[in-house]
Formats: sequence, C-alpha cells, structure tokens
Amino acid sequence: MTSTWIRNAWYVAASSAELTDIPLGRRLCGEDVVLFRGPGGVVAALEDVCPHRGARLSLGRCREGRMVCGYHGLEVAADGAAAAMAGQDVSRIPRTRAFPVAERAGFVWLWPGEASEADEALLPHLPWADDPQWAYGGGLYRIACDYRLMVDNLMDLTHETHVHATSIGQKEIDEAPVETVLEGGEVVTRRFMEGVTAPPFWQAALAGAGLPTDAPVDRWQVCHFSPPSHVLIEVGVALAECGGREAPAERKVSAIVVDFITPETETSHWYFWGMARTFAPQDPALTATIREGQGRIFAEDLAVLEAQQENLSRRPHQRLLTLNIDAGGAQSRAMIARLIRDEAVPLPGG
Amino acid sequence: MTSTWIRNAWYVAASSAELTDIPLGRRLCGEDVVLFRGPGGVVAALEDVCPHRGARLSLGRCREGRMVCGYHGLEVAADGAAAAMAGQDVSRIPRTRAFPVAERAGFVWLWPGEASEADEALLPHLPWADDPQWAYGGGLYRIACDYRLMVDNLMDLTHETHVHATSIGQKEIDEAPVETVLEGGEVVTRRFMEGVTAPPFWQAALAGAGLPTDAPVDRWQVCHFSPPSHVLIEVGVALAECGGREAPAERKVSAIVVDFITPETETSHWYFWGMARTFAPQDPALTATIREGQGRIFAEDLAVLEAQQENLSRRPHQRLLTLNIDAGGAQSRAMIARLIRDEAVPLPGG
Amino acid sequence: MTSTWIRNAWYVAASSAELTDIPLGRRLCGEDVVLFRGPGGVVAALEDVCPHRGARLSLGRCREGRMVCGYHGLEVAADGAAAAMAGQDVSRIPRTRAFPVAERAGFVWLWPGEASEADEALLPHLPWADDPQWAYGGGLYRIACDYRLMVDNLMDLTHETHVHATSIGQKEIDEAPVETVLEGGEVVTRRFMEGVTAPPFWQAALAGAGLPTDAPVDRWQVCHFSPPSHVLIEVGVALAECGGREAPAERKVSAIVVDFITPETETSHWYFWGMARTFAPQDPALTATIREGQGRIFAEDLAVLEAQQENLSRRPHQRLLTLNIDAGGAQSRAMIARLIRDEAVPLPGG
Repeated sequence: MTSTWIRNAWYVAASSAELTDIPLGRRLCGEDVVLFRGPGGVVAALEDVCPHRGARLSLGRCREGRMVCGYHGLEVAADGAAAAMAGQDVSRIPRTRAFPVAERAGFVWLWPGEASEADEALLPHLPWADDPQWAYGGGLYRIACDYRLMVDNLMDLTHETHVHATSIGQKEIDEAPVETVLEGGEVVTRRFMEGVTAPPFWQAALAGAGLPTDAPVDRWQVCHFSPPSHVLIEVGVALAECGGREAPAERKVSAIVVDFITPETETSHWYFWGMARTFAPQDPALTATIREGQGRIFAEDLAVLEAQQENLSRRPHQRLLTLNIDAGGAQSRAMIARLIRDEAVPLPGG
Repeated sequence: MTSTWIRNAWYVAASSAELTDIPLGRRLCGEDVVLFRGPGGVVAALEDVCPHRGARLSLGRCREGRMVCGYHGLEVAADGAAAAMAGQDVSRIPRTRAFPVAERAGFVWLWPGEASEADEALLPHLPWADDPQWAYGGGLYRIACDYRLMVDNLMDLTHETHVHATSIGQKEIDEAPVETVLEGGEVVTRRFMEGVTAPPFWQAALAGAGLPTDAPVDRWQVCHFSPPSHVLIEVGVALAECGGREAPAERKVSAIVVDFITPETETSHWYFWGMARTFAPQDPALTATIREGQGRIFAEDLAVLEAQQENLSRRPHQRLLTLNIDAGGAQSRAMIARLIRDEAVPLPGG
Repeated sequence: MTSTWIRNAWYVAASSAELTDIPLGRRLCGEDVVLFRGPGGVVAALEDVCPHRGARLSLGRCREGRMVCGYHGLEVAADGAAAAMAGQDVSRIPRTRAFPVAERAGFVWLWPGEASEADEALLPHLPWADDPQWAYGGGLYRIACDYRLMVDNLMDLTHETHVHATSIGQKEIDEAPVETVLEGGEVVTRRFMEGVTAPPFWQAALAGAGLPTDAPVDRWQVCHFSPPSHVLIEVGVALAECGGREAPAERKVSAIVVDFITPETETSHWYFWGMARTFAPQDPALTATIREGQGRIFAEDLAVLEAQQENLSRRPHQRLLTLNIDAGGAQSRAMIARLIRDEAVPLPGG
C-alpha cells in the first residue's frame, strides 16, 4: 500500500531535550522506532523490536552506546548489529533495522525511507538554532488526525479568527486578501493587515519589547510549507506606517512559528510546535510565557482537528471544498502527492 | 443496509432544557446531528459536518439563529443554506442537510427520515406537558445496547422483581398473569396485583400523598408501546378494595413512567426516562426525590442491558426465547419490523 | 478454527478464596463462564449466558445451589438444567452448558473441552496443599498476551537478570549453562550456580530462616512445564559446599514458584502465581512479604510481555529466534502443539 507521506525525507523524531540516557520508543511514519544515544552520545535509531523474541527494545536500557534488551539482555549496536549476549554466539542473530538519524538545531531527525538516500545536506537550515540573537521555545502534541489536516490548518490562518478568537484571532484576518505562490520549492501563503489593533498575544509581545500596545499596527503572516511536512510561519506586527514587515527592528516584534509535523499512523501525527523570536531573546521568562500561550492555542486546534478527523473517517467519500483561502493547503498536498508519486517510480535499471 | 429502526418517525433528540444557546452535537439514529436554536429561538437541526472542510459544526457557536463553524467561520442557516463567510461567495458552497425538528412537551423531536414526510401532527400528545395538575421530572442515559433490548425490558416488567428488588420489585409481579394486546396501533401489556404490600417506591409515594403506607394495596402496570420506540407505562397503587386503577383520586397514587428511546448506533441508544404524576404536583422536592430514585433504578437496567448486549454481540446466532412474559417486547419488535419493511416499499411511481 | 490451547485438560479458573457466595464471571479458554457454589458449596460452572434472553448470569445471584438470573429470575441448576421460573413451564427452556469443575488444593479447576473426558484423576497433585510443613501465598494477574509467551518467559529464567535486576536477577544466571530435557511427560529446564552471592530476594529468605545472608551460596532453578500450561519451578539457595539442592534442610531455603496459566483469549491470559515454601511455614507475615515481593516482580514481566505481544501482533510474520536458552519454551510449545493436534484426530468410529 502506498502511504500518505513521503518516505525519503527528514522528519523530526524528537526534541534533543527528550533524548536523555533513557531510550525513547515512538511510532514514526508507521515504524516502531527506539531512539537512543549511541557511542559518544551520537543519536541512533533502531526498529523497536528485539530480533531474539520480539520484545520492545525501548523497555530496555542504553549502555555504552548500545541498546540492551530488557528481556534477555541482547545488546544491539547503533548500526543494528547484534553485538553481545551472555553465553551466545551473536553472529547468528539477525541485524536489527537501523534508521538514519541526525541531531540538528535542537531536534533529532529521522529518515524513514531508503537509508542509502539519506543525506544530511537535505536537513533544513534553522537560523535560530545557534544564534544568541534568537530565542526558541516549544512543545509536542500527539494529535489523532491525518497529518495533512494539520498542514491545511497551518497554511490557512483564517482559522485564527474563529479557533483562537481570544489570543491571536481578529476579524481583519478574514478580511485581508491572501496570496499563495510556489517559490523555491516551497508553497508560500502571504497575508498583510494594515493599521489594525494588535490582538492579545501581540500586545503582550509589544509590551515585552518595550513598545506601545495600543497603537495601530501593521500585521503580517507568511506561511512557508516545505516537504515533507514542515511549516514555518513568519509572523509579526510593526507600529503602523513604519514599513510593516520591513520596518526597522526597534519598531516591530516578529517571530517564526515553527511547526514540524511527523506522521505516526494514517490518522495520527506528532506535532512539534514552537516559536523562534528575535525580540528579548535573553528573557527566559518570556520564552516560558510564550510557550504556555502557544500550548493553549494549539490545544484549541487539536480539539478541532480530531473532531474533523472523526467526521471524515465516518464519511470516506466526503469531498472537501477548496476555497481561495485553502489554496495553501491544497498546493502543499499537491506537492506531497507529487513527491510520493515520484518515489514510486523505479530507479533506472531498478 | 437496512437499519434496525424506523426512519420516518419523530424521535426525542434532547430535552428542551439541554438546548441552551450552546449548540448540542449528538449522534441520533446513526446521523451526526447538531441541534441549536435558530431565529426566534426555534429549534433547528443540521448534519454536524461543515460543508467547507468537514469540521464538526457543534464545536462552533450559535449566532443570530445561525451555526457559525468554529474552524473558518462559515455560517449555516437553520435551513442548511450556506449563509455567510468573510471574503467568500457562499452561493457555491453546498447546502448542509437539515433535519425536521419540533419542540413539544419539554422535548426536542427529530425526524431522521424523508423531510417531506415529517408531519408535526404525528407528534405524540403528552397530557402532562402544559397542565398544572401534572408534574414531570426525568433524565437521560446513554446505554450501550440495541434500543430494542430496552423496549423488551420495559414491555416486560417481570424484571422488576429481580433487577429492582430493593425499590419497585416484589414477588407478586412474577406471579400475576400478564396480558398483551394490540390496541389502537399500540402494543399494550397489562398486569394487576390485588391486596399486596406496596414496595418501597410506592410506600414513599403514598406517604407523599398523605395515604397510609402499610395498608394492602391494589397495584397495576399498563405498558404502552407506540412506534417508533416510545414506551409509556401507567403505574400506580390504590388502597385495596377501592377499585384499583379506577379508584377515586384520593384513594390512589398513580403516574406515568415515560420512556423515549432513541437509537444512537446499532448497539447503543439514548434513553430519556422520567415520571409524570398527578399526586402532589406542586411539590418540587418530591419531583427531585422521584427523579433520584428513578435514576438509581434505571442504572440497574443499564448494567444488565449492556452485559446482555455483550453476550449477544459475541453470539450472533444466539436465539432468544419468547416466553409469555416476553409477548410485549416480541409484539413491539414485530410492529417495528413491519414498519421498517413498509418504508422499504417504493412509493407509487417512485 | 483451531484454538492455540489444549481443550481437554484442567485449567485453574479461580482461587478458592475468590469464590464466595457471590458468583464469579470470567472468560476462560475463550468461554464465558460463571463460577458459583452449587448444592453443599460444591463448585459449579455454567456458560455465563441465560438461555431466556441472553443476560449475563453472573450479574444474578446464587441461591440454594442454583444460579438465579438477575434479569427475569430463571433458576439454572448446577448441571445446567432450567430448574424454576415463576409462572413458567421450564421444561421447554434449553439447558445451559455446564463445565466440569473441581476444587482442589486451594484452586477451582475447569475443563473447557469434552465433558465426558473430564477425569479428576488427571488433576495435578500439589504437595503443599494440605501439609502444615508447607506455606502457600499467591495472586492473580490478567495479562494481555498469548499465554505461550508466559510459558516461554517462565521456562527461560535468563530473563531474571534483566527484567528482575533488583530482586532475583544476577549476572551468574546468564553465565550458568542451562539443560533442557523431557522427563515423565514434562519439559524440565535446569540451571545451577555455585558459590554465588544471594540476590536480595534470597537474602531475605535466608534471614527469615535464620541463616547468614552474606555467605556464598549454591543456587538452583529447576523449571517443570506440564500440559496444558502449568509451570512449577523449584528454586532455592544452600550455603555453599553443603550439597546444593540436596543440602540438609537446615542449610538451605527452598521453595516452589507456582504458575498456573489459563488462556482468556488468543492474546490474553489469567496468570495465577504464587510460592509454596517449606521454610518458616508458620509465619504468615513472611507469606505476606513474599507475596508482595512476587507481585512486584511479576508486574515487571507483565509490562515486558504485553509490549512483546503488541510488537508481534503488528508483525504476524515475525519469526522468533530459538537460542539454547529458549529450548524450554520451545519444547513446551511443541508439546502443546502435539496435544492440540491429537485432539483434532477423530476418535475411532467417530
């Protein structure tokens, strides 16, 4: 069966902070994976199944860079080789599937497809990761819906007016025209609002940056979808008539809403959400406040999306409408579908 | 697939008290329905699916008599028309299915079948609804069994002796002969017990009406099944030798046990239960006491019926016995089956 | 369909202590069973389904040695005959299936197969049951895995080093050779460790018996599998160089780990675990301490086995390896498979 996600791509498997010396079992892109720190603390990922009796490796422990099965003690190396077992000749024990993984920008990335095609040069560049001018905070939700419903959600921020009325929504979002384009391998959706009142979330950000909270602002939202399922959203407000998104740094507050979306099953996904910002980057209390606010906001999406999935699961033939506001999601889905189709094409001589 | 319930009929969807200005989502007769108050507070019912992206409308809000989808703000009118959406031409958005509904006698009634056949004249007349000589109290349970098992239960009160031994059961029920007849489109089951001791529930009622609680009484139970799945039970006790059910009002206490049973799925239903009484109708504390007692009693049925459903689900070929005491349920099921069969007959020229 | 368990055999259905005057409903070997005390307190077992309307008999009550259905009061005798019902001729009510049962050695035993083949002479002899030189304590877990994964677990105690590192595990178990033989219709697995340090569980036992806890000991584990799925394990430690398992009683502490394993469904089972011991048999506080310790230890197995079952259920074609340490489980499974095959052979003239 063809899956509904791209196989040959880097997905976020975990945040770096999740991966301590305790192994972490997680279903990712339909695979049972155990993530752990191999030799020298380098991340490793194996299929979460002991080749001896099928036990779940992630219930075991990590020792000297190997996974030790918690049932009978088989040690599996980071490359999947059966490495040691008391009283046994491990050369006859089958290898465990190892997945390409990389740790970058505070995340552990996993490549669920052909290992030979995994190329770290394809990892996205995240500017905030190692730059003191930036601060980042975020969290993780498991959401019981097709990951593409989350892509739709993020590529059409019209929903903020309705789902997030008390925090980031405002009626001017609905009213501002939206433009969707393909640009450099990304789907980009842009919306600009001029001379509006900042909604509560942005008032707090303005205050945090020492700017007035009740002056009219220009607000922008520029959503970038890139395969396999990353959505980065440039958001911000500038004091009105200062140039909007291009205003000088001291007249605006801006940030990137970070959304890494990893399928778990056909009807569930891991949603790694966060915000990278350039205002007040040295203020960890602000980071915590923003994270808490985002957590509340994205929990509102969770409720909407899980109910949407239930409705769609009961109506396999329901057709979704594609209005102009849905162009971002529709083009993102089309890009995903095209790449899945390309993966199914046999290689020359294959 | 033929469903196991009649489609062209009025079912109770909610009590009037449940339907405030918050929309109410509920699965009824296999349909996802959102109930809300349309223009002027008149009840309305739509399929609980937004025609835009499949969101659950009942997670949205009700504004000026329209449902506003909580995802992107599409407004759907009470008749199902897409009525407004910021920046959109709603004329191209498909209608949402609207269900005929009516509010009557403290309940919201829904017609899940052909809208063109919905006739409010077919709504049952409930004498207690607008008459100060009557008081009514009740509640709602969701029960995980085929709704017909509840019809069986109510049309054979022999079970009171065993299921409700501490409240309304007594061994004389088992011993009194039961008579089942078809009468005016209803299945009627009658049982009379003469010169018995009142069980605890009726002792409390006698006390509430200022009558002696320890004198012998004549007791009666007359169950009326009418399609699609309503069971009204005339119940009461009169001081012995005063005429039983026909005794003068001051020598008896009587009531109607009200049971509106609405399928949710093939193996679950909504059970709207209550009691309408003519004794002490102006005593709200008594209404509360009776409701609490009924709630406890019907919870006993719930446990029995859900376990019965589990047994039957595991044994699809299990044959149920039909003893004489089961005649009421059997004839009610036969009436349901006949009406379902009639619905399947194409109309002339159809 | 062929089940994965032997049908014609005695399985533990309950401990005697569980079976009070309240009937006990339990799914055993794929059958819904109600256990109760029939005439004279003798155990009885019926299919847990009332022949009248399919109610669950175990929700009813036990009266004068009969099950009384909690729905309409049908009385079913211990042999399955419909015995009484108010106002009914019970001769037309079908019999309920009765299962052969026996109470022996503190347990209720059930024979799920052909009743005509049930022979109490086949019940296992449990030496500790009626002998004041022995003490017994135990408990019950429901575990969501194929019962044969539990047999594997118990017939290969290598897992103790890893699963039970803090109580009974020690690295010498892994290192000691294991021997598996067929002996008297049993699969027997033996492991001996000489001159080792006693692990915490056995140090406590040595202390309980008044022996030094820090002296080197000889330790043994002799696992006996007998059909259908009983595992009795002789375990103990003796002060080193006193003869090991054959040491005089005052130089050792020994016990039998008792494991009766009863399938519930294809992927779940009832695990009756306990320990019978000859040291300090008159010390009920020690019995309680051991039971608590065993309960903690077996809960560790539960977690491992349920995760193993999940892995295997998702991978129906996963092949399990059979290393030398797995010989005990493999031979036990082979014995089970052989007996199931024999049951499928039609009897002569059949």
